[in-house]
Amino acid sequence: MDLKAYLAERRGLVNRALEAYLPQVRGPAFRVVQAMHYSLFAGGKRLRPILCLAAAEAVGGDPNEALPVACALELIHTYSLIHDDLPAMDDDDLRRGQPTCHKQFDEATAILAGDGLLTEAFRTLAAASSRYEGREAALLEVIDLIAAAAGYEGMVGGQMLDLLAEGRKVTLRELETIHRLKTGALLTAALRCGALIGGGTRAQVALLTSYGEKFGLAFQVTDDLLDVEGEAAEMGKAPGMDEKRQKATYPALLGLEAAKEWAKRLVEAALAELEPLGEKAEPLAQIARYLLVRRS
Amino acid sequence: MDLKAYLAERRGLVNRALEAYLPQVRGPAFRVVQAMHYSLFAGGKRLRPILCLAAAEAVGGDPNEALPVACALELIHTYSLIHDDLPAMDDDDLRRGQPTCHKQFDEATAILAGDGLLTEAFRTLAAASSRYEGREAALLEVIDLIAAAAGYEGMVGGQMLDLLAEGRKVTLRELETIHRLKTGALLTAALRCGALIGGGTRAQVALLTSYGEKFGLAFQVTDDLLDVEGEAAEMGKAPGMDEKRQKATYPALLGLEAAKEWAKRLVEAALAELEPLGEKAEPLAQIARYLLVRRS
Repeated sequence: MDLKAYLAERRGLVNRALEAYLPQVRGPAFRVVQAMHYSLFAGGKRLRPILCLAAAEAVGGDPNEALPVACALELIHTYSLIHDDLPAMDDDDLRRGQPTCHKQFDEATAILAGDGLLTEAFRTLAAASSRYEGREAALLEVIDLIAAAAGYEGMVGGQMLDLLAEGRKVTLRELETIHRLKTGALLTAALRCGALIGGGTRAQVALLTSYGEKFGLAFQVTDDLLDVEGEAAEMGKAPGMDEKRQKATYPALLGLEAAKEWAKRLVEAALAELEPLGEKAEPLAQIARYLLVRRS
Repeated sequence: MDLKAYLAERRGLVNRALEAYLPQVRGPAFRVVQAMHYSLFAGGKRLRPILCLAAAEAVGGDPNEALPVACALELIHTYSLIHDDLPAMDDDDLRRGQPTCHKQFDEATAILAGDGLLTEAFRTLAAASSRYEGREAALLEVIDLIAAAAGYEGMVGGQMLDLLAEGRKVTLRELETIHRLKTGALLTAALRCGALIGGGTRAQVALLTSYGEKFGLAFQVTDDLLDVEGEAAEMGKAPGMDEKRQKATYPALLGLEAAKEWAKRLVEAALAELEPLGEKAEPLAQIARYLLVRRS
């Protein structure tokens, strides 16, 4: 299987669905729609949606069926980037080489665009109801899981902790909690919800949830490694920013070699979870392996 | 029926349920939970939840059954107040006589508290699934309606329009669009969703939706009148603020007497919608009549 072609095909599928969910229709509050659209189509890798579709596939489901769930995850991810970039938060001017939402529009519009995307995620999920006739309970479980992963016990809580940790020394344990909440929870939800909506058994859902937890951590460790070793042109942002901001990272806490070794072990542990799922989980296996060689 | 006692009883019911949905449990990101709690219990009238419960009652439903929906509406209303008060938006230091969330905590925490409350609203709805066994499709319809009312085609869009209208002359038509989106959509959703979850027929749901639209407009007109004629002590905020800010209001556009007359006619139109529902709609009738004499 050609991972690059697979990712490109899935990205196209997700982008077309997102375009349909958030058309740029002129309405009274067109400015906020433009801002939502701007950030949603600013060149994201669509990792969360792709993982969600691949999890549905891994349990024998139809990836097309999981598209509303996949898109909702990307709407939430995009909202979180917009709000994290705000002056009161991380105060970033650039995101993926382009002006952040509040730089392109203004602060108020960016706050509202984030709010709008978060709200639209749940509307997309609930409005997909007709697609899941007879399986409404599973759809409600998915909404519950995504909301839990995005809220104060997940992503919102993680961003709060990240802000509270600024400028002071954090332990490895604290760093893990921050990442588990800030990025891990939604990545794990992508896999768990994909498996659920794909019709997986409870055992399959559990395997993919566990894969998600390990993948999420490996993703963060390799992200930190990229910041140390990556090149600006490939990353679309300046490397070395974490150090500049005195942000705690795995390489800083563990040392470069130990962090690399740990990423490798996490990926191996993630791969082990996929074994009972056989061939159908091959895309997920390749995506996990790719973490170790990614350049952006 | 004693309206004051009725409202106090319902407010108690809603407050106890909200307390259970958002307990102040010490977790890693306790600060954001505290901020969410602070704003949620800053003395709101609980109008949206009370309307929702009363709508369920008006179609013969059990108001207790509608509590998760009622609470979700208040979580969303509270989030919108926190974000609207932010420096980049309306830049308010006081809300109901107390420091706004970003004044009491800080701007980043307030943004996250709003995000957390919005997310929690949908979690509360989805997690109520077991309460509505066999009626999951109705619950999903409620989630869809609430998200539509809160998002860019509703409240978020209304706040965007409100900001865009600042400092320039708006027409009566524009003012109506702003209010229909900014406050009307969620008020209407409260009634429509209460009727839906209360098991109302399509005809009953339509009547209460129409009541909601008229009530929402009357609410805004009387709110503007209060700003002109109210007294600070009773309102918990300074009167005359709209004029100071050069905000368009109904009294400013229509004249004081014409605005009062219009409010009266809107309340009468709202009351007319309730007639086919009989005695069970008496609380909603009294709440609408109360708009004309309210002092806060």
